[in-house]
Amino acid sequence: MFRKVFILLFTVVVTCMAGICFAQDPNGAETLAQNPQAPVDYVWVLVCGFLVFFMQAGFAMVEAGFCRAKNATNLMAKNTIDFVLASLVFMAVGFAFMMGNDYKGLIGISGWFLHGESYDVGRYLVFFWQLVFAGTAATIVSGAVAERLKFKAYFLYSLAVAAIIYPIYGHWVWGGGWLSKLPFGLGHVDFAGSGVVHTIGGFVGLAGAIVLGPRFGKFGKDGKPRAIPGHSIVHAALGTFILWFGWFGFNPGSTFSAHQLRIAVIAVNTNLAAAAGAAVALLLVFMKTKKWDVGMMLNGCLAGLVAVTAPCAWVEAWAAVVIGAIAGLLVVISVYFWEARGIDDPVGAVSVHAVNGVWGLISVGLFADGTYGLGVTTEPFVKGLFYGGGYGQLIAQAIGAAVCVTWAFGLGYIVFKAMDKYFGVRVAPEEELKGLDVIEHGTPAYPNFYTTNQE
Amino acid sequence: MFRKVFILLFTVVVTCMAGICFAQDPNGAETLAQNPQAPVDYVWVLVCGFLVFFMQAGFAMVEAGFCRAKNATNLMAKNTIDFVLASLVFMAVGFAFMMGNDYKGLIGISGWFLHGESYDVGRYLVFFWQLVFAGTAATIVSGAVAERLKFKAYFLYSLAVAAIIYPIYGHWVWGGGWLSKLPFGLGHVDFAGSGVVHTIGGFVGLAGAIVLGPRFGKFGKDGKPRAIPGHSIVHAALGTFILWFGWFGFNPGSTFSAHQLRIAVIAVNTNLAAAAGAAVALLLVFMKTKKWDVGMMLNGCLAGLVAVTAPCAWVEAWAAVVIGAIAGLLVVISVYFWEARGIDDPVGAVSVHAVNGVWGLISVGLFADGTYGLGVTTEPFVKGLFYGGGYGQLIAQAIGAAVCVTWAFGLGYIVFKAMDKYFGVRVAPEEELKGLDVIEHGTPAYPNFYTTNQE
Amino acid sequence: MFRKVFILLFTVVVTCMAGICFAQDPNGAETLAQNPQAPVDYVWVLVCGFLVFFMQAGFAMVEAGFCRAKNATNLMAKNTIDFVLASLVFMAVGFAFMMGNDYKGLIGISGWFLHGESYDVGRYLVFFWQLVFAGTAATIVSGAVAERLKFKAYFLYSLAVAAIIYPIYGHWVWGGGWLSKLPFGLGHVDFAGSGVVHTIGGFVGLAGAIVLGPRFGKFGKDGKPRAIPGHSIVHAALGTFILWFGWFGFNPGSTFSAHQLRIAVIAVNTNLAAAAGAAVALLLVFMKTKKWDVGMMLNGCLAGLVAVTAPCAWVEAWAAVVIGAIAGLLVVISVYFWEARGIDDPVGAVSVHAVNGVWGLISVGLFADGTYGLGVTTEPFVKGLFYGGGYGQLIAQAIGAAVCVTWAFGLGYIVFKAMDKYFGVRVAPEEELKGLDVIEHGTPAYPNFYTTNQE
Repeated sequence: MFRKVFILLFTVVVTCMAGICFAQDPNGAETLAQNPQAPVDYVWVLVCGFLVFFMQAGFAMVEAGFCRAKNATNLMAKNTIDFVLASLVFMAVGFAFMMGNDYKGLIGISGWFLHGESYDVGRYLVFFWQLVFAGTAATIVSGAVAERLKFKAYFLYSLAVAAIIYPIYGHWVWGGGWLSKLPFGLGHVDFAGSGVVHTIGGFVGLAGAIVLGPRFGKFGKDGKPRAIPGHSIVHAALGTFILWFGWFGFNPGSTFSAHQLRIAVIAVNTNLAAAAGAAVALLLVFMKTKKWDVGMMLNGCLAGLVAVTAPCAWVEAWAAVVIGAIAGLLVVISVYFWEARGIDDPVGAVSVHAVNGVWGLISVGLFADGTYGLGVTTEPFVKGLFYGGGYGQLIAQAIGAAVCVTWAFGLGYIVFKAMDKYFGVRVAPEEELKGLDVIEHGTPAYPNFYTTNQE
Repeated sequence: MFRKVFILLFTVVVTCMAGICFAQDPNGAETLAQNPQAPVDYVWVLVCGFLVFFMQAGFAMVEAGFCRAKNATNLMAKNTIDFVLASLVFMAVGFAFMMGNDYKGLIGISGWFLHGESYDVGRYLVFFWQLVFAGTAATIVSGAVAERLKFKAYFLYSLAVAAIIYPIYGHWVWGGGWLSKLPFGLGHVDFAGSGVVHTIGGFVGLAGAIVLGPRFGKFGKDGKPRAIPGHSIVHAALGTFILWFGWFGFNPGSTFSAHQLRIAVIAVNTNLAAAAGAAVALLLVFMKTKKWDVGMMLNGCLAGLVAVTAPCAWVEAWAAVVIGAIAGLLVVISVYFWEARGIDDPVGAVSVHAVNGVWGLISVGLFADGTYGLGVTTEPFVKGLFYGGGYGQLIAQAIGAAVCVTWAFGLGYIVFKAMDKYFGVRVAPEEELKGLDVIEHGTPAYPNFYTTNQE
Repeated sequence: MFRKVFILLFTVVVTCMAGICFAQDPNGAETLAQNPQAPVDYVWVLVCGFLVFFMQAGFAMVEAGFCRAKNATNLMAKNTIDFVLASLVFMAVGFAFMMGNDYKGLIGISGWFLHGESYDVGRYLVFFWQLVFAGTAATIVSGAVAERLKFKAYFLYSLAVAAIIYPIYGHWVWGGGWLSKLPFGLGHVDFAGSGVVHTIGGFVGLAGAIVLGPRFGKFGKDGKPRAIPGHSIVHAALGTFILWFGWFGFNPGSTFSAHQLRIAVIAVNTNLAAAAGAAVALLLVFMKTKKWDVGMMLNGCLAGLVAVTAPCAWVEAWAAVVIGAIAGLLVVISVYFWEARGIDDPVGAVSVHAVNGVWGLISVGLFADGTYGLGVTTEPFVKGLFYGGGYGQLIAQAIGAAVCVTWAFGLGYIVFKAMDKYFGVRVAPEEELKGLDVIEHGTPAYPNFYTTNQE
């Protein structure tokens, strides 16, 4: 099967590469001459992109922390390979689908392999930025399908997310596609990707979790959900801090220009939403259980970050607090909601990313305060319902969210179902019980420690 | 009680917000027009601020590493919640107290909730910077009171530090308050916060440690201190590296402008002081015990960083080495000093932050070499005793240090004593013995591993 | 012995410092006046340097993860002390040897202790950058000699690397020395240090591993190598992500100027080589063993990063993929190669850094595409064999690589042999069996966990 994929890719590529060689600036001399202020923008975008890359470490730590020791090697493998494959396939075709020349608002069709006219400092910069986002979308999935998915399946869904699902939807919103041109408000807008990255990743994860079914032991004989505690709260907390840190690249960096001084507002909003989400989730669970639930606080924090990702540039600080606080509420409700429906999402990826991604998109239509535009400081500005913008923007946001959910869940479901039919996506029962580390990877994560059998 | 606090806050806020709506620049267009060079300064301050934020992860790892596994969940909870609460309360009132319009040199009185005239890119930038500092001050405390403080008490002291203790003292030094106008030298100066952040956090921690009393088992029946080893040297080392990394934001970023090329000198000085502190602490303990004590080396490193935080911009490289080396000496002496007095500071927070914060303030009055001013490259320059500056600056530094110690220890003591009287700050004995994780948080940090009972 | 070293250093320093006091700009006012665009370059270099510093944490985590729990404290100590000592000695003499005024193409001879004319913002900036590189070279060694080297020996080889081995070779390539002036191609070139940092560190490590001999249990009675699994795949993966993150400072920052917009291309190439290396190493081992070997994937990733470090600025994206893929192949072959020869390199440092450092140097002579010069956008551009550049550059690269290997291995061997003769570099057998933590450092890394005896 790999061979077939390669032959297909090869054919596509050779066909597309023939004859492409336009104006380009591979060393940046011309770009600098035309825009002497470019260096600070390049520094900003690159450094923020580095921070977004580092979120891979955050996801790895969060997922390891929230899962069991017997699958920790597997989780490290997955969190590495998804970014590795995303890098390669997004360079090959994903970037072209997303940011290539637009074809009827549906898809991009140029820039394969970063070759030809894409060998240009500006194009490479855009590629780098979009790549780290694509990698984030891919890695979100792995939390929802943790502890039971075959490693081979990671290869294939990572390729699907980075080559098709993320870039095509991304094209619709950020690549000049049809969603960005909806005749409501300023069209569907998503500043840093509550939808493009998080809703996409979260709903593909949901599809995977549904196809896979719950882990052994997650639901009792009576169908009631049982807690399966993760093996290291310290790793989970470290991962959350790394993600929070990386989000300061994710959101402010999405101006793609340091000349947008709005970056200061975006940084503040990002932080406040995280704080509000964490506080609300912690207090809610405390009121219910009288325990200070760290796991839920960490997920509340991440929920706030996901939610504020779309509106971060268009709202005031207090609104960021409100958006984050609602996210903290939603994540708690959502965790119970999915559990009650027999869906097992080991790290809460669906509740954090899928649900709050949607909330983030909607919140733009409510709280956007009309002080900032689409990455520019000139009108038209994005304005939501609460600031007299009427329902236009809210409708655009709702349409985009609906499309996003449908696209991600639909394609995700097809991908996981197809894999399941073809080779079976779930590991054998004895492997799941013993842990994936030894059988799939040949080595336990912690051979020097005595571990419980963890079921 | 929470309700009362909220009502109070609400009243204050509504009163203050009424009618405030001055000139402001929420999207940055005007600011950029007035200062086309602003983007690089924004990038610098934000990126450095992100690094300072990341120090939260460093503190979490250091504290986890130096404490026992049975309290690791608790430490993660504390290290998250202190920053979460600091974010919210500093946005609500702390920032106004610190950087609002000055009232008689004592306190700031405008900018509540970042609203009104504060909805401005420049103000948000200042807020972000000061927020991550406030969060650092709050989180320093948790190391000194680790493994025995009720979680509820974390809520309250975090609020006190971020709303009152840090911002008001900060106003005196950095907000145009009275200490900055002392008639000695150039007034009390503290480049990046040896005093404002570290001495404050450290002495509040000392107050907490005194009110709490030592952990069970810290002192034998004979009163002699006993080592309670932390549960992961690897976490402690990782945390130290993260802090060291974050300090490159903390100190150089405190120029608040990339146009101060002195940032290169500050980065070098920061690094050298850390290295010198680590080397001296390691060697000192080796001479005494013939063991290469990693914990002390890590604290020596942090001590050097704390000490150089005040003088980093005003001294030459060799002086940074000397300042750091003395810090490495002081931290070793200090650890034994407090232990001998029955005070139990599990991670050495008092020795690192309180003691070396004071040393850092004093060192400015000795080593400042008269090549750099108060964040500017024009005279008057800060000049210490060894460079012919006379005793003026040294006196200003000593006064500031004395005020800082008194303020932080005094208010910290009041806060902890009041909490202790109101609800008792220390967990129940059986809880302390069993560990705080299960009882307060409902989950051990490492459920898949067999752990010792750790006493 | 320490005393003798100090006396020697002191004499050298006093001699050299006498009378040096040229034009300088300690606060940056003049530098800014002459080059108003300097701030963005300073920000770029400093932030990238901070990232390179953070690689210390990455090396610490990778080495801890790939070694056994009983030596984890020791590894933390080593990874800290090597950077600490490198900082101090590189400031004292290393920087002068490397970047001081050139003496006959062989060595630099000015700038001791950053004093005198070196008290200048621009010089401090260069120092900071080179220091974090020197620290990287020093820390690479520790992986190859892990789990059996006396702590004292770390002191001495760290000093040797940071004072002599790295800076003098560095002078030859980056300080205007003879290798940079070879009459082939544009002379020997090494954009970000595949040779200067990684080959140097890797071959000193190889020398150390040879002098030390293999760990007990690494080879069976039949001489066949046996796997000694590391104690935490999670730490190893975290460390790899941190290194990958830091490499985005290492490579793009080596332009030493944000005005080189080529930084975007460099970031992309760095990432793609890492991804390709990881993918190839993973697949190769899977084809052989049918296991998804995470350790090898992580080393494949690092191998790709090492290899692309020299060519990163001079090649196109697809070439970075090829270079990384070959690195992934080489690292797998190399691991088996050294093992088969009885050389025990616990973390694969030789295979990652030594072997792929050489490959990186060579690859420049093959893939450099003639679009970029020596950190400038004007001709002459670096051009390799595959782009019609003939054999010139390839010859220069081969000569440089041969010199690098000879220098690093030769001096490394002398240093380790001398230490071995003087005091014996290897710990006592019972200490090695019990682990270095308790005996050398007085504390196990994980006192709250039950650990296996690990051999």
